[in-house]
This record gives sequence, structure tokens and C-alpha cells, in this order.
Amino acid sequence: MFDRYYDELAVGDKRSFSGLTITETHVVNFAGVTGDHFGLHMDAEYAKTTPFRQRIAHGLLVLSCGAGLIPLLPGRVIAFLGMEEVKFLAPCFFGDTIHPVMEVLAKKDKAPGGVVTLKEDILNQRGETVVSARINIWVGSSPSARAA
Amino acid sequence: MFDRYYDELAVGDKRSFSGLTITETHVVNFAGVTGDHFGLHMDAEYAKTTPFRQRIAHGLLVLSCGAGLIPLLPGRVIAFLGMEEVKFLAPCFFGDTIHPVMEVLAKKDKAPGGVVTLKEDILNQRGETVVSARINIWVGSSPSARAA
Amino acid sequence: MFDRYYDELAVGDKRSFSGLTITETHVVNFAGVTGDHFGLHMDAEYAKTTPFRQRIAHGLLVLSCGAGLIPLLPGRVIAFLGMEEVKFLAPCFFGDTIHPVMEVLAKKDKAPGGVVTLKEDILNQRGETVVSARINIWVGSSPSARAA
Amino acid sequence: MFDRYYDELAVGDKRSFSGLTITETHVVNFAGVTGDHFGLHMDAEYAKTTPFRQRIAHGLLVLSCGAGLIPLLPGRVIAFLGMEEVKFLAPCFFGDTIHPVMEVLAKKDKAPGGVVTLKEDILNQRGETVVSARINIWVGSSPSARAA
Amino acid sequence: MFDRYYDELAVGDKRSFSGLTITETHVVNFAGVTGDHFGLHMDAEYAKTTPFRQRIAHGLLVLSCGAGLIPLLPGRVIAFLGMEEVKFLAPCFFGDTIHPVMEVLAKKDKAPGGVVTLKEDILNQRGETVVSARINIWVGSSPSARAA
Amino acid sequence: MFDRYYDELAVGDKRSFSGLTITETHVVNFAGVTGDHFGLHMDAEYAKTTPFRQRIAHGLLVLSCGAGLIPLLPGRVIAFLGMEEVKFLAPCFFGDTIHPVMEVLAKKDKAPGGVVTLKEDILNQRGETVVSARINIWVGSSPSARAA
Repeated sequence: MFDRYYDELAVGDKRSFSGLTITETHVVNFAGVTGDHFGLHMDAEYAKTTPFRQRIAHGLLVLSCGAGLIPLLPGRVIAFLGMEEVKFLAPCFFGDTIHPVMEVLAKKDKAPGGVVTLKEDILNQRGETVVSARINIWVGSSPSARAA
Repeated sequence: MFDRYYDELAVGDKRSFSGLTITETHVVNFAGVTGDHFGLHMDAEYAKTTPFRQRIAHGLLVLSCGAGLIPLLPGRVIAFLGMEEVKFLAPCFFGDTIHPVMEVLAKKDKAPGGVVTLKEDILNQRGETVVSARINIWVGSSPSARAA
Repeated sequence: MFDRYYDELAVGDKRSFSGLTITETHVVNFAGVTGDHFGLHMDAEYAKTTPFRQRIAHGLLVLSCGAGLIPLLPGRVIAFLGMEEVKFLAPCFFGDTIHPVMEVLAKKDKAPGGVVTLKEDILNQRGETVVSARINIWVGSSPSARAA
Repeated sequence: MFDRYYDELAVGDKRSFSGLTITETHVVNFAGVTGDHFGLHMDAEYAKTTPFRQRIAHGLLVLSCGAGLIPLLPGRVIAFLGMEEVKFLAPCFFGDTIHPVMEVLAKKDKAPGGVVTLKEDILNQRGETVVSARINIWVGSSPSARAA
Repeated sequence: MFDRYYDELAVGDKRSFSGLTITETHVVNFAGVTGDHFGLHMDAEYAKTTPFRQRIAHGLLVLSCGAGLIPLLPGRVIAFLGMEEVKFLAPCFFGDTIHPVMEVLAKKDKAPGGVVTLKEDILNQRGETVVSARINIWVGSSPSARAA
Repeated sequence: MFDRYYDELAVGDKRSFSGLTITETHVVNFAGVTGDHFGLHMDAEYAKTTPFRQRIAHGLLVLSCGAGLIPLLPGRVIAFLGMEEVKFLAPCFFGDTIHPVMEVLAKKDKAPGGVVTLKEDILNQRGETVVSARINIWVGSSPSARAA
């Protein structure tokens, strides 16, 4: 989405992006970086005793990988401002493949560009929405728009 | 916070947790796991041209490390349901040390326990709030409460 | 164990801690950090020719993960002094789930706290002891004990 | 040391091996793999309040990196049996460069080779011993010795 | 470059891509994945005795990160066939920021697309070429070209 | 190969080295370090639609791991100069075990040692050559040769 400048994005724009298989390695590495080694993600014996019956990926890993799958070129994103209504709707099992779908919900000018509100849905290979969120990003204007 | 069961948490409970220094390694590893190698985090030359003047940590890394610093024992958390009003309020520079503060805002019964709404503030070593969020977690009841 | 101060630990205290599944990722990452890429851990073809018939985790990885599973709060541990009788008793295969059991064997005052000697057994999901060791940790006294 | 077979090692053999700089990355990655994110290694603010005044590497990281610096060829090591008198003698600060020195203390036949007891000293760039240990390794005989 | 199909690339096309700071973390992690822990990259004391006077990044790390900086969309690249005249021209020190420049040298049809030969130069922040190579990639045709 | 000095290597010398299983973890970690998260390596659903029918390791990962399997002692390698005729001949699937075979093709004096040209073949467990290359390394002379 952020291969485009503020003036190149329009309300209603909707795009689907490349996918990523969430592997055991992603989960173990994410636990390592963040310190969240909770048994639901890391202890196969414990996970068997939960409603999920197996280890699942961290919700924040899925959300973060969704962000990593969005193209992002220099000069577009100024700052990630925040999120609303982040919902972890379904478990992401090891080996599931996710991909994000984004839609521009709103735009609000803020120099030198504007704040873009996006709906992000992260789907798995079965077409189920695993995570959904509304995201606010401050995006810069294109050089031509700034020159205008 | 999740060294406690649903019935052991009360509205107004507030705790501060251990800290973590967000290093260059955390940022590079997080970029690696998630695929978000945006220049603001990974390209020192590009970062000099932004308002931050230097590389900064991913907002989702700070949020995720905040989660990793919360104690979490088996049987307490059933599922991470979602977040509201996630705000990235200040940049986290390489070498900054963060720690989370959590407060129970609300409780709502949902068998076999209930949904706890928490306010999370992640502060840096200068006492500034870097990230804040409202978090909904489904927490299990204690064995004694379940037996009652 | 080290959610407690020196004066809060008594000879004979025994506790069992949360588990961790030792994955292929743990082994590959541990090899990477330490430089120990020996074929018994990293070469499936070579491992087939050994008495274990498959790759096994590094003994020091299992010992280190055992340490990582012990709760550890600020102010308790002053320094890890050493180990005695470290025994690698059984192989840890990829996918095995380990958990540590610790017992306080002895205490010896040493300001500002004392040296605690612990027996650590690291068990797998079949109840077999994979690693055992005697560990010496210098632990601080609680604020109330220091004030007394 | 384990570029040699049991029959190629003699009591009194002593060798010094290549060095490794223990970086912040090693410490953060080791914390991630093992789950040991204790503030003495990971929280620069907390570390300032300890006798070390700064973050230090995990003792088990230094010990494990010492093992990783020892050459190890297929067919030599059968199993790592255990350790005695493991002593963490001095802190290893970020940026310190360590190298191991090993000496054969004893040999005891055990088919198809024997158990070798080694003294390992891990020294830093100032010549101080950071970790010392006595190590028992079961080593295989050379093809020629087995044929004899 | 591989956000384009075979028919969208023309001899003489030349593009410069986003940059990446090669950190100590990249070098330590690359050593870990590949097993190349040579002292020139990993031992600060040894590196002081070399003509470089400090640790440098692995040439293959710089080459691989150059590849990682090239956009690559599904359906474009079929296979990476090989490289010619790979030259490691200058050291890449920790903290240097690299970016790749690619130029299409030749195209040769090979169904369902063709082989593209590219000149890749990886430059640092001082404009010096650190690595150069000639690269052969088998690229697919666009859906419209295939339909034609 | 680089446990030997320039004067200890002769044209025609040929050696085979230890093996390594290329795991999912190697691929995910390599993608993370280099930023190359292309679907052929990282997206199991996409990979099914390619001629390979499954995810494959990055060619540069296999090449780099081949390098990491070559013994390399201080003082031997001065610099890695370059490569010729690098060919990615066969896919490396997750779980394949590779090992390098190297042969000295040519030597050319260059103080304080000389440039050695090697043929490197990286084979899998089925004896297929996965990658081949011609490599130029600047190697130092032995202390005794330099004293002569």
C-alpha cells in the first residue's frame, strides 16, 4: 500500500498482498525477540490441554507479519500512529499461510501529507480472517504534489 | 499480570513490570521475523532524512516486547481477544529501556473465567509513554473458584 | 525459584516449572549463537550413523533452556557462581518437551544474602531426567530482611 | 580437540583455540533461544544498579561459545557426558573476546573408545579466566585403532 | 527489478534500490545461519591484526542482502540460474549502509519467459562499489504477453 | 581447506567436508537476515504453483552454508576475492543435507602468499550437485614459508 504517496491513495482502494507461511521458526524466533514464551506457543504438551489442542502463533506475530507483507517505499510512511479494533478472530496454526488485504477507509490532510485510515484483514489459506484491525498511518505527499 | 487467575484480578489493580533494553539486535531480528525491513528501522542513511534523525524501533516490536514482559503462567490466559486505542506516542530509539505498566479497567464474566480489559502503558527510561493500548484478554478462573 | 529472596528460600523447598518444547529451531539457533554445528545436532545423514539414529539437541541447550524456565525477578540473583555434577543422562530429541524441577539443598550466608545450592533435574514429557546438575547461586536478601 | 580420536589424545595435551567476540547480539539471541531474559543481561537500567554496573553475558552463553570454538569432526565425539567444577569466575562484558584453552587430564577406556576428562579454561582478551570447568567426553577410537 | 515480467524489462533498464545498514547483528546472525564464524567477521582481537584492522561483513552476506533489497513479486522470477564475475571489491564495515544498482545487460527467450542477465553493483554510503556481479535470472512473461 | 596455508595447498588437492541439513529454520533465518522473503522460499501455497511444487532454499543460502562448512583457521585466508561460474543446478528442499567438495584448480603468487582458485561443488544426500562455483581466495603463507 505504501508504494504510494498520500495523494496516490483514494478511499475505497483495496489490494491483496503476497503470502507468508507462519512456521514453527517464526513462532520460536518471535518468542525469542519479544520474551513471550507462553506455553500456548512454545509447549506442545501444555497446548494439548487447551481448546486449541496444539501450539498456535502469537496474535501479535500474525499482526506484525501482516505489516511486513505490505510494500513500503522510502518517503511514503512518516509514522505509524496507531490501531483500533484489533481483533484476533481465529488461531494461526504452524504451517498456515497468511496474506493481508487492505482497504482505504478514510483520508485526512496533515502536512506534509495526511493520515490514512485502513482496514486490514489478515486471511489464511482457507480464506478465514485470522486478524482484523483498523490502522492509522501518517503518509507523505508525492514530490509532484508537494511541488504543486 | 497473568500470574493471577480471573478471580484474583480486581478492577483498579495496577502493576509495573521488569524492563528491557530495545537493542539494535531486537530491531534487526524483528525485521527478520516479520519481513518489515523499512528504512526507518533498518537504513541509517535514510533515517537521517526523517524527522527522527536516526533509526527507531518498530512500534509493533515495542508493543510485543511489552507483552513479553508480563508474567504469564499456564492456565491463566485462555486467549488474547484484541486491542483498542493502540497509540504509538513517542519513538523508541536503539538502546532505550522500556517497561510496561498495567491496570485492570474492567472485568466481564465469560466461562470458564472472564474477559479482563487492561490499560497498558509502555514507558521508557525517561518516564515517557512510548505506546499505550487497551487490551482484552480472556482469563481462566482459579482451580479453587472453579471448584466452588 | 528466583521470584524469592534468600530469606524466603528454605532447604527442602522443591518446585516444578513450566515446560518448553525443544524444536529444530532451538537447535539451529543455538548452533548459530554458539558456533557448535556438530553433525550430531545439525546433519541428519550423519546422525543416522550414530547410536542416537537421529539429530539430538545440544546438552548445553537443554541445560540453558532449563535455566530460562526458572522465574527470575530483579534483586534476587546476584550472580551465578557455578555448577557441580552436571550430567547429560538422556538424549533430547527434536520435539521433546522439557521442564525443570528444583530443590534447595543448602544455604550459606554471604552478605548481602547468601549462596543457595540447588538440585536441578530437567525432565522430558516421558518423565525421564535428561539433565541433572547441582547449582550454586548467590541470592540477595529481601528488603525487609535487609532492613531488620 | 575433537579433530582427534581417543587414541590420538594423550594426558597432558594442551591446546588454545580461536577467539570470538561476545557481542550484544550473542546475548540477545541467547536470551531468545533459552528464555533467560534476566535484567542483568537485558536491561541496561537495571544492570547499572548491580555490582557489575553494566549488562553482562550469561555464564552459560560463555560456556557454550567456548564449546563451539573447539574443533569437532565426525566420528570423534560419541557423547558429552557431563561437567564438574564449572566456575563462573569473572563477568564477560559485551564486546569482550574469549578463547578456550583445553588440557587432557585423564583417559579411561570405554568401547568403542574412551572417556576423556579435560580442563577447560575460557579466557578473555585481558588474559583473565572467565569460566573454568572439568569436562567428560566419550570419544571414539580412530579407524586404524579399531582395526588393530 | 522483479516487480516486472520478462516482457516489461528492456536491455539498458537501470534502477537503484533502497538501502540497508549492515549491522553487527546481521554479521553475527549470518555467521550463525551459515556456520562461517571466521575471526575476520567474529573476533575483534584477530581482526585488529589483519589489513582491515576491524571486523568486516562476510562478502556473501553483502551479496545476499543486495539480493534481498530487490523487489520481487510472485510470478516474475522462475529460478535464479547463476552468477558470473562476482567481485568483492571493498570491505563492508559494521554500520555501513549498502544499496544495489541493477542494469539489464541482455535478454534471451526461454519459455515461459526468458533469461535476463543483469549487472549488479552494491554500493556503500560513500558511493564505493563493495560487490559487483553479473547475474542470470529466469523470468516469467506477463499474463498479457502469455495470452498474446 | 583453509586449515592450510598457501604453501601447503597444491593444484589437484581435493577434499570433501562435513554435511549440514538445510532446515526450514535455515531458510526462515536467512530470509530474515537478508530480507529476501520471496514466496518460493517462504509461502507454501505459492510454492505449490511453481515447477518445484514446494518451498526451496535460497541458492545463496546453500552457497553460503557450503562456505561455512569449510574449515578456516586464523592466518590462512586474507580475503575472499570473488567467484566465477556460480551455477544453481538443482533445488535444495527443506531437510536436504548438503556437503561441499573442493579442489585446487590453480595457484598464483601474490605476497604475502597467493591467490588460490578452487572448484567447489555442493552435493546433496542423493549425490546430486546442487551448486557449483569457481572461487578465488587470497591465502597467506605459513610462518615457516615466510621465514624462509
